[in-house]
Amino acid sequence: MPANRNLKVGLVGTGFMGRTHSNAYGQVLRFFPGEVGPELVAVCSRNEATARDFAAQWGFDSYETDWRRLIERSDIDLIDIASPNDTHAEIAVAAAGAGKMVACEKPLGRTVAEARRMAEAVERAAVPNMVWYNYRRVPALTLAKHLIDEGRLGRIFHSRFKFLQDWTMSADLPQGGAGTWRLDAGVSGSGVTGDLLAHCIDAALWLVGPVAEVSGTSEIFIRERMHISSGKRLAVTAEDASLFLARFTDGSLATFEATRFARGHKALFTLEVNGEHGSIAWDLHDLHRLQYFSHRDEGALRGWRSIHVSDGDHPYMKSWWVPGLQIGYEHTFVHQVADFLAGLRTGEKRVPDFRDGLATDAVVEAVLRSARSRQWEAVEEISASSPEGIG
Amino acid sequence: MPANRNLKVGLVGTGFMGRTHSNAYGQVLRFFPGEVGPELVAVCSRNEATARDFAAQWGFDSYETDWRRLIERSDIDLIDIASPNDTHAEIAVAAAGAGKMVACEKPLGRTVAEARRMAEAVERAAVPNMVWYNYRRVPALTLAKHLIDEGRLGRIFHSRFKFLQDWTMSADLPQGGAGTWRLDAGVSGSGVTGDLLAHCIDAALWLVGPVAEVSGTSEIFIRERMHISSGKRLAVTAEDASLFLARFTDGSLATFEATRFARGHKALFTLEVNGEHGSIAWDLHDLHRLQYFSHRDEGALRGWRSIHVSDGDHPYMKSWWVPGLQIGYEHTFVHQVADFLAGLRTGEKRVPDFRDGLATDAVVEAVLRSARSRQWEAVEEISASSPEGIG
Amino acid sequence: MPANRNLKVGLVGTGFMGRTHSNAYGQVLRFFPGEVGPELVAVCSRNEATARDFAAQWGFDSYETDWRRLIERSDIDLIDIASPNDTHAEIAVAAAGAGKMVACEKPLGRTVAEARRMAEAVERAAVPNMVWYNYRRVPALTLAKHLIDEGRLGRIFHSRFKFLQDWTMSADLPQGGAGTWRLDAGVSGSGVTGDLLAHCIDAALWLVGPVAEVSGTSEIFIRERMHISSGKRLAVTAEDASLFLARFTDGSLATFEATRFARGHKALFTLEVNGEHGSIAWDLHDLHRLQYFSHRDEGALRGWRSIHVSDGDHPYMKSWWVPGLQIGYEHTFVHQVADFLAGLRTGEKRVPDFRDGLATDAVVEAVLRSARSRQWEAVEEISASSPEGIG
Amino acid sequence: MPANRNLKVGLVGTGFMGRTHSNAYGQVLRFFPGEVGPELVAVCSRNEATARDFAAQWGFDSYETDWRRLIERSDIDLIDIASPNDTHAEIAVAAAGAGKMVACEKPLGRTVAEARRMAEAVERAAVPNMVWYNYRRVPALTLAKHLIDEGRLGRIFHSRFKFLQDWTMSADLPQGGAGTWRLDAGVSGSGVTGDLLAHCIDAALWLVGPVAEVSGTSEIFIRERMHISSGKRLAVTAEDASLFLARFTDGSLATFEATRFARGHKALFTLEVNGEHGSIAWDLHDLHRLQYFSHRDEGALRGWRSIHVSDGDHPYMKSWWVPGLQIGYEHTFVHQVADFLAGLRTGEKRVPDFRDGLATDAVVEAVLRSARSRQWEAVEEISASSPEGIG
Repeated sequence: MPANRNLKVGLVGTGFMGRTHSNAYGQVLRFFPGEVGPELVAVCSRNEATARDFAAQWGFDSYETDWRRLIERSDIDLIDIASPNDTHAEIAVAAAGAGKMVACEKPLGRTVAEARRMAEAVERAAVPNMVWYNYRRVPALTLAKHLIDEGRLGRIFHSRFKFLQDWTMSADLPQGGAGTWRLDAGVSGSGVTGDLLAHCIDAALWLVGPVAEVSGTSEIFIRERMHISSGKRLAVTAEDASLFLARFTDGSLATFEATRFARGHKALFTLEVNGEHGSIAWDLHDLHRLQYFSHRDEGALRGWRSIHVSDGDHPYMKSWWVPGLQIGYEHTFVHQVADFLAGLRTGEKRVPDFRDGLATDAVVEAVLRSARSRQWEAVEEISASSPEGIG
Repeated sequence: MPANRNLKVGLVGTGFMGRTHSNAYGQVLRFFPGEVGPELVAVCSRNEATARDFAAQWGFDSYETDWRRLIERSDIDLIDIASPNDTHAEIAVAAAGAGKMVACEKPLGRTVAEARRMAEAVERAAVPNMVWYNYRRVPALTLAKHLIDEGRLGRIFHSRFKFLQDWTMSADLPQGGAGTWRLDAGVSGSGVTGDLLAHCIDAALWLVGPVAEVSGTSEIFIRERMHISSGKRLAVTAEDASLFLARFTDGSLATFEATRFARGHKALFTLEVNGEHGSIAWDLHDLHRLQYFSHRDEGALRGWRSIHVSDGDHPYMKSWWVPGLQIGYEHTFVHQVADFLAGLRTGEKRVPDFRDGLATDAVVEAVLRSARSRQWEAVEEISASSPEGIG
Repeated sequence: MPANRNLKVGLVGTGFMGRTHSNAYGQVLRFFPGEVGPELVAVCSRNEATARDFAAQWGFDSYETDWRRLIERSDIDLIDIASPNDTHAEIAVAAAGAGKMVACEKPLGRTVAEARRMAEAVERAAVPNMVWYNYRRVPALTLAKHLIDEGRLGRIFHSRFKFLQDWTMSADLPQGGAGTWRLDAGVSGSGVTGDLLAHCIDAALWLVGPVAEVSGTSEIFIRERMHISSGKRLAVTAEDASLFLARFTDGSLATFEATRFARGHKALFTLEVNGEHGSIAWDLHDLHRLQYFSHRDEGALRGWRSIHVSDGDHPYMKSWWVPGLQIGYEHTFVHQVADFLAGLRTGEKRVPDFRDGLATDAVVEAVLRSARSRQWEAVEEISASSPEGIG
Repeated sequence: MPANRNLKVGLVGTGFMGRTHSNAYGQVLRFFPGEVGPELVAVCSRNEATARDFAAQWGFDSYETDWRRLIERSDIDLIDIASPNDTHAEIAVAAAGAGKMVACEKPLGRTVAEARRMAEAVERAAVPNMVWYNYRRVPALTLAKHLIDEGRLGRIFHSRFKFLQDWTMSADLPQGGAGTWRLDAGVSGSGVTGDLLAHCIDAALWLVGPVAEVSGTSEIFIRERMHISSGKRLAVTAEDASLFLARFTDGSLATFEATRFARGHKALFTLEVNGEHGSIAWDLHDLHRLQYFSHRDEGALRGWRSIHVSDGDHPYMKSWWVPGLQIGYEHTFVHQVADFLAGLRTGEKRVPDFRDGLATDAVVEAVLRSARSRQWEAVEEISASSPEGIG
């Protein structure tokens, strides 16, 4: 084992996110060499065969079938939670209580109450922690963040965020199957609001700032679906679509929309921010491009620039191939691990941490509340995490 | 005078819309020959020099400085209202009362009350009437309408409409100048809601159907501007931005947004409709293209088709040039005149008429009401115009 | 008749180009007011009914059935030739001989010999003349020309030009029908080389400069087609596709391609120029946009700008509508007339004139020669037209 | 060591391509599990420190500083050549002679003579072999190949291929530095012809078929550059730009262009194929999309479909993430390894093998010959590799 495989990782969950995280741990040192690196010590799944096969496939040294056992193990430094949403809080609180670092898939909790317990647990234990809002590490979005932080857009007036899919439109899609716990609000907390809109909200809080109030609505277009275990038609509890208007504390306005009923869109996460001096736009279907409009360009030559974010002076890109050659989705997880490792080394806080996850959950909850009250609802203010924490 | 220059037109207004209408009257018979055609009899402006010059430039036989005089003239069949919004109701009611056909720029009235008086006046007088929601005659949008009417999209779940501009972002832009009566809500009725969102709403009612309820908000980003006549800084009364969520009576959901503070967009009117079997999308900045996604295409070959709507089998296009050669904005007005003339000949109702204009105004008013009440507001139901009317 | 309808036009030809020219003459003074303007005095077609109907439709005062008669008329100042290519030289030389101004559709001649006779005739007569290479007046291309002339691209290394269509791909399309004289090289001089490549070549000479030598090839994919008058299958004489490589006198390299067998393209005229400091690209299917890349932009923010050429500071656009609203194909002809009229007023030379048309024909001929010789062929050098001439 | 890490790889070269190959070997079993998988036994670089560090970084068990030693080792099954072009032939012939499987970076040889020796060596030894023309494994291009093979395009008339870069435009870029052996024709064989055009040619032969003859030209825009070792200005020997016209044996025509002087393009490899029934287009800057036009679509609804090649029914994509999530450049190498491994298991021939590499070199050589002769040159016919070979 090379000396820099020294951050001992225990992963909970072997689904889609278990794969993206494992790949990130495996790839990070190839492209972002450093003194601190992940060692894949153990993976945990309730199903033993699944755990064993996943460990073999992804190079974990061992496996467990009970996450409590994972937390008890002294040879593990970091617990990474990639299991369904209803397990996040319990595992995270226990892991923090055992002094482990904690990484958690989004959304942090199913409710603000859960997320708050989690954030308080890691802060009490003073353990490094992060939430996998991976899209912050798309190079084009990191570049957008730099532009905004440098004041290139000036005062912001508008933003808009969408996450459009169409994979649940068939009435024949059952509930309760693998990958469909997202259709069960008991497990997931909500439907597209916590699943897809949460990505939009995290991006909004990061790029634009805190949201003051929201007015939302949601819909379940197919009200009943067969449940895969019982074979019975049961009421669907997770919303198919969720839309809201927002006012940010800076006075700017935004529209948000997430749905799984937008025919023709597989995973179209898009965002646009319009400011005084310029605008940026991006979409996940062409994630390697940033659209940028600068009003400071010479009048007759103003236009939206399509920046192919693949050059050596673009965020993260020097570590990959040569200019013009795209990276893709999985690399955002590699970047997040690379930044987390760098934070461990330097002591610098890395975001998004649990407090950022809590802030997103506060907006999610206000949106769901507004959908019920049919009125504008204020978003609970979440104080920033203390800067000295390691993120 | 050729025999088919037999529909005697009197135009009120010499601004931007006066020009688009005049051009349409001048061009229509070149490309859509027929037995009925417009004769430009008189134009009216309060300023005599303006009226005289406009008449010379655009080929009107005479001019007036008082619209009442225009209505009194027995050599005029159609009164076309292209003057500011605060003049629409009075002129239209008088014209209908005098038995004239009436065409009116959008929005029909500043309020539902005004619009209702206008619709009732033309219906009482049983005169052909229309509102210039010209974008219905963009060939790409007419094609979209055909696709929806043919059931190609199936049940509709989502739509979204935006009209984004950036021309009023400078704090130095005064109120009250030529072309800026749109910033004075006393004249215009509202800001972007009646001006830009009205186009979105008309398209939505036409493509998707009636709106049941809305939740909106609006903003004036620059609260005071110098008034050009007094030189004083006065409160701006017309909103810069207006956004709303909508539920249609078919259960589908939509987002709407209009603003003059979206840096980088000159006149970006966009719309998208997502249905069970397919989707369509369009934007005014490339108005000659329709984006169409058909879920009925073979699985692995599904993709958004970029249809260059310039072929002989596309709406209106056979009358213009040859395939591949674009037309532009002005042509939508030519098409509206061509359809109106065809309606006169066949007796078939042509839309949008005043009742359609009233329906749009009912949504506009609900949006403004919701922005004040901070709650969802029901949209007043407008009964359809009687089918036997000539539109 | 208004006083500024004082340039008396006689038009030969009532086909597609007869329509575009007539429309331009009709529209120009509405949008580009001035003291000199066209009066549509007479149109000429061999078929009397066609001539009469066209005159009525487009507002010509009279018609002729023999172009010689048109030239004899003393009430005509300008002879505009929009008839098939095999008539250009004879009409133009006669018109110039009669002291008329001459406008001629492209290509100027079927051969360099014809074109040279024409250029020499108008120069001998010292009459204003022009060739309808209309695409120079697409605002986006005019803007591109300005950028190049200002040195924004620096030394040019590469350019590429394509004109792709698919309208003759059906083997059932006959020869000899209306609109298909372009398939008969006896009439047209050549196939796509003179028809489509000529547009590419004119743009290249204008934007990049003189071509030194070419290596070309061509193909007739469907060798026989039924002739519409005889009903017999006859050999097709006009090439379906024509491609060539070029070296310009500045040392830059280019590819050129024109075809009517490129499935999916209606009239895709595209060009791109790459220079030391920047590049431009454009295509006719979205003619209102210019793509511009500036290497002088800040490193990490470089990207191709999509300029929506519809603003008041863009060439020609102040005369049309408001920012963001497209014009289309027909407007390029209006601009060419407007510039010609301005040239008459100021005495300034306006291009492209007959000498420019001759220069393009010299490249066309070298391409055809190279396709036969299977070697590089030098392009005959054409001296520039004298600057004092009125263009 | 897992049982399926059983194909013992020895890699020559630690540059850009050494990295892409190593990554592919490391990743393949995570996403394409199987009984046969690569074990990274040894890497070879002339510089010991480089070799040692690369081995540590990429997980090779050992390293060598002489490729002859690598070939001698009995614990190696496959020699993978990722060193500069002037080493390919000698290593490959020796490796085949020692009974090793051989993989080789493109272009196969610097000349047809070299490539032929290599192809004959692996065929004589009957060892599995492949050339890294990785772009065949872009899922969008693999899909394009399927469409063509299924006859969706019908008879092909046209194709066009470009590979445009701008990284050598600065006159200050020296010769002879790391990564700039590509500017030394002695090492590389040629400039952009063998480097970039070779990718275009391989794609053309694969998608369209054999090329019969070519007419080309090339240019060195900056004739002298400082050599990094001597500090002297020396003549540049590798061409900056290379263009050619081609006739395929099926009678279709094509344009090819490669350059490093196209400002604004980092690695813009594009291709388009036009057939009787449809067309496809693709570009490397958005490599996850295939543009497809089907003339068999309903007339008024025909358009280029932008297919986001990221779905489970698209080539290779089921093995990666979920629909809508892009992969990038590096994955093409993973796919090539996965296919090679599958070929070893099934005995099925996998392309491109050395004979395909030889065929591409035959076109490269004809292009260079034509650039000198200034005439059309026939392409040497290369007989297909025997189908029973394992590719």
